[in-house]
Amino acid sequence: MNDVLDVDQLLTELTLAEKASLTSGSSFWYTAPVERLGIPRIMVSDGPHGLRAQPDEADHVGLSGSLPATCFPTASAIASAWNPGLVHRIGQALAQEARAANLSVILGPGINMKRSPLCGRNFEYFSEDPFLTGELAVGIVDGIQSRGVGTSVKHYAANNQETDRLRVDARVDERTLREIYLPAFERVVKASQPWSVMCSYNKVNGQSASENSWLLSTVLREEFGFQGLVVSDWGAVYHRVPALLAGLDLEMPPALGRSPEQIIAAVEDGSVPLDVLDTRVRTVLELVSKGMGVLGLEESFDRDAHHALARQAAAESVVLLKNDDGILPLATGAAVAVIGEFARTPRYQGAGSSQVVPTRLDVLLDELGTVYGEVPFAPGYRVGNEGSDDPQSLLDEAVRVASTADTVIMVLGLPAADESEGFDRTHLNLPADQLAALAAVATTNPNVVVVLMNGSTVVLDRVLPYAKGLVEAWLGGQAAAGGIADVLSGAVNPSGRLAETIPLRLEDNSSYLNFPGDSRIVTYGEGLFIGYRGYDASALEVAFPFGFGLSYTSFEVTDLAVDTHGSVSDGDLAATVTVTVTNTGAVAGAEVVQVYVRDVESSVARPVRELKGFAKIALAPGESRRVSVELDQRAFSFWSVRHGRWAVEAGDFVIGAGAHSRDLPLSRTITVEAPSLREPLTRDSTLQEWMQDPVGRELITAAVNGGQPATVMQEELIEVIGTMPMSTLANFGGMSLDHGSLDRITADWQRRTVTA
Amino acid sequence: MNDVLDVDQLLTELTLAEKASLTSGSSFWYTAPVERLGIPRIMVSDGPHGLRAQPDEADHVGLSGSLPATCFPTASAIASAWNPGLVHRIGQALAQEARAANLSVILGPGINMKRSPLCGRNFEYFSEDPFLTGELAVGIVDGIQSRGVGTSVKHYAANNQETDRLRVDARVDERTLREIYLPAFERVVKASQPWSVMCSYNKVNGQSASENSWLLSTVLREEFGFQGLVVSDWGAVYHRVPALLAGLDLEMPPALGRSPEQIIAAVEDGSVPLDVLDTRVRTVLELVSKGMGVLGLEESFDRDAHHALARQAAAESVVLLKNDDGILPLATGAAVAVIGEFARTPRYQGAGSSQVVPTRLDVLLDELGTVYGEVPFAPGYRVGNEGSDDPQSLLDEAVRVASTADTVIMVLGLPAADESEGFDRTHLNLPADQLAALAAVATTNPNVVVVLMNGSTVVLDRVLPYAKGLVEAWLGGQAAAGGIADVLSGAVNPSGRLAETIPLRLEDNSSYLNFPGDSRIVTYGEGLFIGYRGYDASALEVAFPFGFGLSYTSFEVTDLAVDTHGSVSDGDLAATVTVTVTNTGAVAGAEVVQVYVRDVESSVARPVRELKGFAKIALAPGESRRVSVELDQRAFSFWSVRHGRWAVEAGDFVIGAGAHSRDLPLSRTITVEAPSLREPLTRDSTLQEWMQDPVGRELITAAVNGGQPATVMQEELIEVIGTMPMSTLANFGGMSLDHGSLDRITADWQRRTVTA
Repeated sequence: MNDVLDVDQLLTELTLAEKASLTSGSSFWYTAPVERLGIPRIMVSDGPHGLRAQPDEADHVGLSGSLPATCFPTASAIASAWNPGLVHRIGQALAQEARAANLSVILGPGINMKRSPLCGRNFEYFSEDPFLTGELAVGIVDGIQSRGVGTSVKHYAANNQETDRLRVDARVDERTLREIYLPAFERVVKASQPWSVMCSYNKVNGQSASENSWLLSTVLREEFGFQGLVVSDWGAVYHRVPALLAGLDLEMPPALGRSPEQIIAAVEDGSVPLDVLDTRVRTVLELVSKGMGVLGLEESFDRDAHHALARQAAAESVVLLKNDDGILPLATGAAVAVIGEFARTPRYQGAGSSQVVPTRLDVLLDELGTVYGEVPFAPGYRVGNEGSDDPQSLLDEAVRVASTADTVIMVLGLPAADESEGFDRTHLNLPADQLAALAAVATTNPNVVVVLMNGSTVVLDRVLPYAKGLVEAWLGGQAAAGGIADVLSGAVNPSGRLAETIPLRLEDNSSYLNFPGDSRIVTYGEGLFIGYRGYDASALEVAFPFGFGLSYTSFEVTDLAVDTHGSVSDGDLAATVTVTVTNTGAVAGAEVVQVYVRDVESSVARPVRELKGFAKIALAPGESRRVSVELDQRAFSFWSVRHGRWAVEAGDFVIGAGAHSRDLPLSRTITVEAPSLREPLTRDSTLQEWMQDPVGRELITAAVNGGQPATVMQEELIEVIGTMPMSTLANFGGMSLDHGSLDRITADWQRRTVTA
Repeated sequence: MNDVLDVDQLLTELTLAEKASLTSGSSFWYTAPVERLGIPRIMVSDGPHGLRAQPDEADHVGLSGSLPATCFPTASAIASAWNPGLVHRIGQALAQEARAANLSVILGPGINMKRSPLCGRNFEYFSEDPFLTGELAVGIVDGIQSRGVGTSVKHYAANNQETDRLRVDARVDERTLREIYLPAFERVVKASQPWSVMCSYNKVNGQSASENSWLLSTVLREEFGFQGLVVSDWGAVYHRVPALLAGLDLEMPPALGRSPEQIIAAVEDGSVPLDVLDTRVRTVLELVSKGMGVLGLEESFDRDAHHALARQAAAESVVLLKNDDGILPLATGAAVAVIGEFARTPRYQGAGSSQVVPTRLDVLLDELGTVYGEVPFAPGYRVGNEGSDDPQSLLDEAVRVASTADTVIMVLGLPAADESEGFDRTHLNLPADQLAALAAVATTNPNVVVVLMNGSTVVLDRVLPYAKGLVEAWLGGQAAAGGIADVLSGAVNPSGRLAETIPLRLEDNSSYLNFPGDSRIVTYGEGLFIGYRGYDASALEVAFPFGFGLSYTSFEVTDLAVDTHGSVSDGDLAATVTVTVTNTGAVAGAEVVQVYVRDVESSVARPVRELKGFAKIALAPGESRRVSVELDQRAFSFWSVRHGRWAVEAGDFVIGAGAHSRDLPLSRTITVEAPSLREPLTRDSTLQEWMQDPVGRELITAAVNGGQPATVMQEELIEVIGTMPMSTLANFGGMSLDHGSLDRITADWQRRTVTA
């Protein structure tokens, strides 16, 4: 077998039928081979946080057993580490496991935005913030592809719910798409050129993603410069020929006996130009050519090393939310009791296409046993319907066990049935029996540390009053238990920061009135204002803000300096933001310095603040370091609907730096110069717009008042009728203007402002 | 002059040029005459709460002086009376004033919804609720038209802000239009056939209202059955010929020298069929014919009687919000002091096209003087920039005056410059100097009754702590002061109820993130959930809920009975809701019984509750009466986007009755039978939809499992892949189905459900 394909040559040799066949897979996980010409099939497989390789294709929907693979922390967990370098290392490990399975493309990462905490698949996504998501996407894609294995960045685009996901029409305005839902794709495409992008099931503004030429061709390829292959989500092709024309290269799984025939017919009747098909086939062949690199390899991977990496990642994913009285870390000799079924029946990943068969599975009870010796345990509640213990006896036992210990580690979380691909949650609550157990235990023993296992945000109003310590461990993968034990014992100093806000109530989320929609429509009525952008815009209190996380040490961030360079006119405005970070506590730890930008005054609605840079810094006790974060012009830009492009508006911007989105003690205001975004004055500009323009005001008052300034009465009148376009006023002689004088004024304005 | 025109005959005699001329006015307030054929001009004039007749046309934008007329309470005030009979009487009075001025059509009422409390023109609109607005619109239109004067219901449609109002595109989904923004128009058209409807300035979903054939022809004429004339808002025609084609009859003010010529040319070149022009001209002539009834009349009106009606209306518009320790009413002999510039400089109406030159003007200080004798007064704050007193001395004087009295009446409100046609407010705060004066006064004398004068909601967080009594008097017209004095003294027992929620914070309003939009676009992202529908859906506390208002007596509402009749199948489902209302206090008063409907379970998102009926009942002390409210089928319906029609979904509905939207102690659940809204199962129905249908489930399990029930594992799988359309599954053989077997199953389902 050749190392690479001669794509140009192959395109001259392939028959029409062969070309058509290449634009679908040959089976559930394989591309189509053309043996006559030495084109092999390559294998693709689910795998955002671990491989789900099914070389035997045992079932018909691709959801049964798969080869054992290291189950790393899920995306919502690992995002909390705010560490692109860490996901890069995980990517390298995933790639090694792929090489060992002769797997060419890993179908991940999932980089959709967490529009609502209810989305059933949030555990597969990173964050509610596009900047953080983009940085993490670059990390993992570069990590995987650096080892010759491909990625498929998904699900493009606006796939932010599971409810009716194959039919729902996501109605979202262009600015919101450009500023919130597309930037992570844009960033990873420009920085990393993922081998493939996976289009989503849903419609975007009326057009299925798989048939959406604006998304697939105009934006992804022409604007973002994507060079790779667009593959459908599994079953996302509804009409093969329009999808081909729109820019979809590869249909998966194949609609054998249908799609290739339709394409052949469409080329023969001229409705698909042959060069369009050739372009798609070329892209498929380029992917196959790259993917051939793993064929025939006889490599393996180091299960122990990968498990150790998974444990390190799990520990770094933990977010310490509360630590009253310094209850954590728990010294090695502490007399602890453990309550909670999840301590012996781990919840560590979500259900659906991302579900991995782990190589091994840590159990928290055992991990704590290795630190604290034999620990008393009670399940406290049941998970699912198994077991015969009645709730009261479970409660009684939990209270009894809790009363024997100095400190109780109480493990709570969402049952697996609550979180899965395929459906959305309907509430943010932990199960009532878990909350009852917590209340009972805390009444007996107030020294409770709660550990949470859940794939997306839960509300904490019935947890916080009972928890002296609170640890959000997310779904941390097969080594989650070890990672949690490391944090509880202090072997690892927690450095996770929330990648999604924890609200006080579900109803406070800005998408609440519009999630998940109905009648096959979901309206993104909150626009830009998802996640912290929504809570901030509405000045709502939250339980824990975006970016929040505690440490066993303390940090100071001081001495903010902002050095701007370049210019908006040249398109290269940039700012270097530098601070000093000091570990002011007694143990080593890592701080995440976060930089947010706010446009003080704008002609369009803008978020109160937006994350535009961050840096994670490990520091020994007493250590101090200068840290710089680079902001580019995009950090100051908004998508101008009126201009159809990114724009920076002249004026003040506040650059805030600190520990999280609502703790930015350092800030600097910079004044940015930029070409005016005001549109030229025309006959259809309003009276107000004319009067706000110095030359315009002069010309109007000359025409109306013979050059005298406007009287108070006229100024008041302008308040009332100022929204009228000049042409409307001229229609009926308002302001004593007729169309003739308006034409003259408009011409004068153009002459004076062009020469100026 | 003939009494009426022979329209058929005239249409045969009019030249093309004459016809074209009739579709524009002849000047700012007059239609075009055709003297050759005895067609007179008729006059129209602003006038939602009083006439603004300008027979001399003194200026070019129609905003200078007008004839004196009775200034009744503004719409936001009178709506609080919840009394269609009262607005009917005001309508009759307005008509009499119109007859006295030989004015044919009053350009009102304004019935737009209060989407945001910020809308600058809210004082001209009734409510945030379409049902209440519709009932009041019917009252005033019937009142005016019963006296042979026409109305122009405005501004059609989705004209809910002043910001960029001539260019802004209101993007609002059809269901929201149908359920929130159009129903008041629908109700008044069907019940009262207003002589005219005024189209708005703005665009609706991309098309200017004046050129929007869906709004003007499909919905207004074909669906609602409107028989009258569509007139443009003054300056709302941007392209005369497309507007003519869309259904706009009359352009105002005329674009003389342009529009008629464009129409003539369009008829001559065939782009406007002559019969379209004839239809528009016929409508104009029918309006002129009706309007001729007032020409040549030499009537007058009784200024005293109208002023007395205005005073009665103002008193009934007052909403008593707080009355701690029964501080109100204030006995005739009470030692009161009055603070607040508004007590001697009344704020009683808003600015813009609705501004009336009143026949006289009551001043609160004088009115209180007639009740309480000479009352000490201090202005406390300034209104506008007039006056030379510095704030501190104003404050000192107010404190000194307040300290001398038993009770302080403190008048606060919004400066005129805050509320006007032409621009929107940017906040809901009272002026800081007023709030400072209140705090200072209340510190001296805790017995403070605050009287508010404002055209739309203000936030009260800095008022409530200082006010033992709180009276919302709105902008009550020229006799507002008398009406307020009547309420304060107890001569009138307040019976007003809020027609708009008073929120705790502006940010709690559901339109907050999307008001007023920018870039010439406003997105109605909150959908249906405006006003109380929003606060209720998000379970937000409010300062005072929709429908709230206190009385000097107390009421009990008991013995709810609900009698349903008719059926959804016949389209005549109805319910009679009957309660007993008892005046349990010591003075006569009126209660507003409010009936709300809630759809308990629905396939689409529905409001928590919606006002669907009310009745205002005057009761002597101890008196008890049975009161019935009729609900029709619409009370249970939603606009089904999938079906393109109103629909009632079978199941439970809760009918709640009580004193306001958040005080509904009586409720009854009724079960409504209705034809299923489920769409027939097809190849594109999802696996989930098939499995939820009994026949569908049977057919699927027969095909997949040979008739055995689904296994637990299959049920779990269905959870994950249930959103897939069957055709998608068949594409790749998912669930062991192919297209052939899917075709068979679909045919079987159709056979069995059609015969069933």
